[in-house]
Amino acid sequence: MASDRIYMDHASSTPVDPLVLEAMLPYFNEVYGNASNIHSFGRGSREGIEKARKQVADLIGAEPEEIIFTSGGTESDNMAIKGYLNGSRKNGTHIMTSSIEHPAVLRTFQHLEKTGFEVTYVPVDEEGIVKIDEYTDSFRDNTSLVSIIFGNNEIGVVQDIKELARIAHEKGAILHTDAVQAYGKIPIDVKEMGIDLLSLSGHKIYAPKGIGALYIRKGLRISRINHGGSHERGLRSGTENVPAIVGLGKAAEVCGQRMEEDTAREMKMRDHMINEIMAKIPETYLNGHRTKRLPNNVNVRFSHIEGEAILLNLDYHGIAVTTGSACSSASLDPSHVMLAIGLKAEEAHGSMRLTLGRQTTDAEVEKVLEVLPGVIEKLRKMSPLG
Amino acid sequence: MASDRIYMDHASSTPVDPLVLEAMLPYFNEVYGNASNIHSFGRGSREGIEKARKQVADLIGAEPEEIIFTSGGTESDNMAIKGYLNGSRKNGTHIMTSSIEHPAVLRTFQHLEKTGFEVTYVPVDEEGIVKIDEYTDSFRDNTSLVSIIFGNNEIGVVQDIKELARIAHEKGAILHTDAVQAYGKIPIDVKEMGIDLLSLSGHKIYAPKGIGALYIRKGLRISRINHGGSHERGLRSGTENVPAIVGLGKAAEVCGQRMEEDTAREMKMRDHMINEIMAKIPETYLNGHRTKRLPNNVNVRFSHIEGEAILLNLDYHGIAVTTGSACSSASLDPSHVMLAIGLKAEEAHGSMRLTLGRQTTDAEVEKVLEVLPGVIEKLRKMSPLG
Repeated sequence: MASDRIYMDHASSTPVDPLVLEAMLPYFNEVYGNASNIHSFGRGSREGIEKARKQVADLIGAEPEEIIFTSGGTESDNMAIKGYLNGSRKNGTHIMTSSIEHPAVLRTFQHLEKTGFEVTYVPVDEEGIVKIDEYTDSFRDNTSLVSIIFGNNEIGVVQDIKELARIAHEKGAILHTDAVQAYGKIPIDVKEMGIDLLSLSGHKIYAPKGIGALYIRKGLRISRINHGGSHERGLRSGTENVPAIVGLGKAAEVCGQRMEEDTAREMKMRDHMINEIMAKIPETYLNGHRTKRLPNNVNVRFSHIEGEAILLNLDYHGIAVTTGSACSSASLDPSHVMLAIGLKAEEAHGSMRLTLGRQTTDAEVEKVLEVLPGVIEKLRKMSPLG
Repeated sequence: MASDRIYMDHASSTPVDPLVLEAMLPYFNEVYGNASNIHSFGRGSREGIEKARKQVADLIGAEPEEIIFTSGGTESDNMAIKGYLNGSRKNGTHIMTSSIEHPAVLRTFQHLEKTGFEVTYVPVDEEGIVKIDEYTDSFRDNTSLVSIIFGNNEIGVVQDIKELARIAHEKGAILHTDAVQAYGKIPIDVKEMGIDLLSLSGHKIYAPKGIGALYIRKGLRISRINHGGSHERGLRSGTENVPAIVGLGKAAEVCGQRMEEDTAREMKMRDHMINEIMAKIPETYLNGHRTKRLPNNVNVRFSHIEGEAILLNLDYHGIAVTTGSACSSASLDPSHVMLAIGLKAEEAHGSMRLTLGRQTTDAEVEKVLEVLPGVIEKLRKMSPLG
């Protein structure tokens, strides 16, 4: 691929870090045994998996045995929520989530609603922060589980998970968080924050696609949601994806080593972009809280135009951005996240997300800031919405 | 890893073919877009996926749109069976399977049995062939689905899927087959054989672990079993695992090109091994049908000794084999497959599986044939079972 293209869509997916790929490569055709086997080929694979489990755990202050590997964030979310509720329906059939969840959580809740669970979708304020009073007041005697996204995939807003978990526990419920966008980017300590279940994904942190993990607090019981062999403590059947697991472990390690530096660098670029876009382009608004925000997320809306048109025009200039999230991009409906922060449908459609990454350069940022005003101006002139 | 070790466990997992790895590599950090995105990075990933979908389909005479990518054989089996039954419970709550299924099918049936389905486990004869009369007679008015393993993972027996599908259709049911061990190794034509649902896995055919697919006959409706984004025609949520999908496609293509040659070569080695082991070592028996058998499977049992002891002794000689299958190897119970072909528990425990592969050499075969008799003799002398 041409290297003069600019990738500003790291929330959708990231390239695999060279160190991660290097760690993975031997596991494709040198250490290729099935980790369930006790012969030397199998033992080599098992060692790779267990090292990775510790690396993934270490980044969030968990124990290795609290980590289960899955095929990605979606599976982790499904497994956490359905697995806990199947395992303990007796704990209560009222469950709660926020109005700005990823589809993997939102649609799981909608599915559970059809099967007899009562669901409260807790609203957020216009900056995307969960309304703490409504949250607190929504608990019932039979509330068993709360699921709140740690860092939102569209507008980047970061919730106070520690406080939300504290309240959930006080009310006798447990807390799951979809930390797919937050893990590896901001400091998380599951013990200090009181998190019971946490989902994470590889391909958002420079590990490959097709691998994720679920943190399950020691002592918490969940049931399996798939059926088959007794892999992963009997909780997740299927031959372990050894190269990808090793890659996820290495990626977690690299995130731990680089987090301070990467975060500082990305926040600086992020703030510069937000300030410049707002200053240079009239009628432009930031989506999501200004500071309680993932370090790499810029999400702005422009009046009178369609995000889709911006996307296609920027793509023509070799710049990759998205309107909402990749996972909902097939839909023509306005994003439920945008509606939840109080936008009208046409405002929601005028939004654009830029997400920075480890290899984003200042020169790329300047190039985008140079191209964008002209694109917006051109589109506004053509717009029937103006 | 030392190259003087001998790997005879290809049914557990295979090394990734160099051609497959070569095809995958650009998708880790050059073409790394999320395939749901419409910018150029996303489109590059989408093209890789759709090419692979055709390659996977072509090998079994399917249409590309009949293939859904999953995280592996276990997920494909779960999705096929639960997805079809959830989608059409009204078709009937009696379901059938064989007594020699992989745990991914067997335990899914056991789970469904607990949720209210009536299950018939059709027996096999002493060579592992499904008893066709009992099979035919087991259908009821409300039989909706039959799942029969194409090529057994332990004893290698290959069923007459075409005939089993014909009877199922005559009785108004559909047929799913777990073809994880058969796909890419023996010719399969889903249209000519009348297969409705077929599961396959990458890491058994020199593609990586963590990727599989499900063939769903056009017109057949199944429901999703996970919840999230609208990937894979809305049937399987989660960011597509692009490098692994591309690898699976390439592996299918290579299997198609090499099948005739590989099968002939492996069958010759297989038959030589079976003949020599039976001739050289007294009180040795073949498990599974002599000719209706996967080309790479040798499974023999030795009286008076434990397969586990054979495995460990061969491992000491650098030779990797298994007792049963990798997916059940954590269990101390005798294999349900061995019991199904009429063996007593102690006979089942005396079995050993050797599975050949693309890189297995005649020299390796001879080395195993040289080492094995001494190992068996030594163990029999030590055995309290003799």
